[in-house]
Amino acid sequence: MNNFVLKGDVAYSVSKNKTAYAENAYIICIEGKSAGVYRDLPEQYASLPMKDYTGKLIIPGLVDLHIHAPQFAYRGLGMDMELLDWLNAYAFPEETKYADLTYAEKAYDIFANAMKKSATTRACAFSTIHKDATVLLMRKLENTGIVSYVGKVNMDRESPESYIESSAQASAEETERWIHETAGYFNRTYPIITPRFVPSCTPELLSSLGELSRRYALPVQSHLSENRGEIEWVKELEPDSAFYGEVYDKYGLFGDPQKTVMAHCVYSTDDEMELMKERGVFVAHCPASNMNVASGIAPVRKYLDNDLNIGLGSDVAGGHTESLFTTMVETIQNSKLYWRTIDSSMKPLKFEEVFFLATKGGGAFFGKVGSFEKGYEFDALVFDDKTIAHPQPLSLSQRLERLVYLGGDRRCMQAKYVKGLKIL
Amino acid sequence: MNNFVLKGDVAYSVSKNKTAYAENAYIICIEGKSAGVYRDLPEQYASLPMKDYTGKLIIPGLVDLHIHAPQFAYRGLGMDMELLDWLNAYAFPEETKYADLTYAEKAYDIFANAMKKSATTRACAFSTIHKDATVLLMRKLENTGIVSYVGKVNMDRESPESYIESSAQASAEETERWIHETAGYFNRTYPIITPRFVPSCTPELLSSLGELSRRYALPVQSHLSENRGEIEWVKELEPDSAFYGEVYDKYGLFGDPQKTVMAHCVYSTDDEMELMKERGVFVAHCPASNMNVASGIAPVRKYLDNDLNIGLGSDVAGGHTESLFTTMVETIQNSKLYWRTIDSSMKPLKFEEVFFLATKGGGAFFGKVGSFEKGYEFDALVFDDKTIAHPQPLSLSQRLERLVYLGGDRRCMQAKYVKGLKIL
Repeated sequence: MNNFVLKGDVAYSVSKNKTAYAENAYIICIEGKSAGVYRDLPEQYASLPMKDYTGKLIIPGLVDLHIHAPQFAYRGLGMDMELLDWLNAYAFPEETKYADLTYAEKAYDIFANAMKKSATTRACAFSTIHKDATVLLMRKLENTGIVSYVGKVNMDRESPESYIESSAQASAEETERWIHETAGYFNRTYPIITPRFVPSCTPELLSSLGELSRRYALPVQSHLSENRGEIEWVKELEPDSAFYGEVYDKYGLFGDPQKTVMAHCVYSTDDEMELMKERGVFVAHCPASNMNVASGIAPVRKYLDNDLNIGLGSDVAGGHTESLFTTMVETIQNSKLYWRTIDSSMKPLKFEEVFFLATKGGGAFFGKVGSFEKGYEFDALVFDDKTIAHPQPLSLSQRLERLVYLGGDRRCMQAKYVKGLKIL
Repeated sequence: MNNFVLKGDVAYSVSKNKTAYAENAYIICIEGKSAGVYRDLPEQYASLPMKDYTGKLIIPGLVDLHIHAPQFAYRGLGMDMELLDWLNAYAFPEETKYADLTYAEKAYDIFANAMKKSATTRACAFSTIHKDATVLLMRKLENTGIVSYVGKVNMDRESPESYIESSAQASAEETERWIHETAGYFNRTYPIITPRFVPSCTPELLSSLGELSRRYALPVQSHLSENRGEIEWVKELEPDSAFYGEVYDKYGLFGDPQKTVMAHCVYSTDDEMELMKERGVFVAHCPASNMNVASGIAPVRKYLDNDLNIGLGSDVAGGHTESLFTTMVETIQNSKLYWRTIDSSMKPLKFEEVFFLATKGGGAFFGKVGSFEKGYEFDALVFDDKTIAHPQPLSLSQRLERLVYLGGDRRCMQAKYVKGLKIL
């Protein structure tokens, strides 16, 4: 039984405006779930095995709502174009290589290893259009111990000859084969329906994918309103939809009853935002990518204040790093530039709000995930933050803020638990 | 004699648009200066000691034109205010502590150690108003082996009671004592005249500092046009000056004949820019700080295209990290947001341009510094970038871009040379 106690200095989000702090506290893990955080160890848990992390910082695992596994190989390269050109110049040629399982094996080993060592405990990952490489990726991720949704990508139009599926039907059938092939094989790795984005998918394909999502009760991930050129293109391709998100919605790929996460939402209109709220669609905010491919700044303050479901995405390789601490810093910085350069009524995000986004906000996509409140799945990270020297005393909240800004995920992470399992 | 050869894969800026690449090349160091980069080892250097870094990446050292040493202690904390409030809430209270040499010793040990381990080989650092702590900081930096200008800060108005000098005269006299006290003591650490910024300095003090700069032929560093509130305040305090920079200029603190570096320049007017160009004033571009204290985005494209002197600054602790690789990434990202949200005629910066800024651009403040061209002072960094795994072959230029984006300064720096001396 995975029942145990961790002792240390604990911080976790309770709500978007409230972080709970407890020094020298005990977190109880019972059957993979938190049984709460206590200042004194309750009698009933006194005999459980205890891991003593006294003086160390313990926080919930971080949730990456948007990452492209096959793009990990070229993260930090080719950051000199806007989205659509960048896809053709870098993303599609790299993704094409995953038809070759030898290359895929090599690349996904590197990716899985990096994910394991990162502060990410949950992820929504895009694979490529290739079924077999997608299964391979799922196997690699399963072995890391992190929990992930992995999507075989669908593309049947407006794509390079070497990187496109032969028809809507072929794409849907291959997807269904993939669903059958992986059903019951993994503990921590689940399929997710993944139309790349509207420009890459015919209405026929979107319709079939909506059907698959319904039939197999599978969640959905895609891209939405990321870049001005892309949005114009969607208007040309689907003139009958009032806005970008409506295209997905038309085919049952936009939330309720299935969970859906849409990456970017830099330029979502009020109508689009309203529909997302109605359908419970999650926003994956990807600030690095929004800067690197020059898309712009997403109005996160607006989404938060309107109580949309929202979390963070590294969006490797539009984003250059899998580090969600970096994403957190960029999220705060971007919100300040949004306030300064675009709309001074949109107040910069506070640290607590971004900590919420990175944990409980995105975690909601996975259920009760991203907090240490009773009943939440037990994902925890332990940091020996004292190894980053300082001359003055620091409060627990200061230690947390500093840990994030100074990149503690790479510098002093000491242990990682996912769903009650110690994976690092 | 410090004469030797390094062998490895070499990259360095030749001009703002041109990076030179040479795989398996030899860099010759003769008496602390580069004698050039060669594909084949020239006969005359064949007997010099050679350090073999085959397969590793060698680039010039990075130059930090703006960093506050006493703020290093609280980097990554208190990122919830704009500049002027932030100074009062965080910077001034922390800097006040450096009256106590015991605290200063502890804090500056941490700072110097971090600078030594960083990719920075040259820095322009602010100290505090305290003479003795400034001398202590100089001693610590001297021991690291990096080359730096260090400034005792001057403040005689509009400052907290606990952190202000008693009069313009007292401030100037203490500064002159400091200049005498440190003259001839250090090999690699030089004094620089450092009025904090116009709001903190009376005209009388600025006038005395201009006089000291002339008398002792000392360079100057300060802040300029960083934040809208600050600029308004300067207008109120100095209504006779047409623009912020003119105040410094009036007192001989704005370049030619002495070197001057001004941090930020987010909102410099065309007149200010023109005067900076005329006087050869250096811009220290500090993107992290410009985001963190919500100042805005500086028009670096404009400065570059107008051939101003310009380099990068970490601006710890407005900036949250001393890593200039991070500053490089932020510089590119900021230029993209500037283009996207402020002025679409200002093209995003290219990687080569930012590599130039971080090395040869800022290096010019120190003389012939920041390149491996013949005659340049020998500052070099060696990276074992293969330790960051990748599945595909990479060109040398790709390796460099990737190294910077992936934070190679913390992950795989293997050796550091400054002015011909191996310090790490």
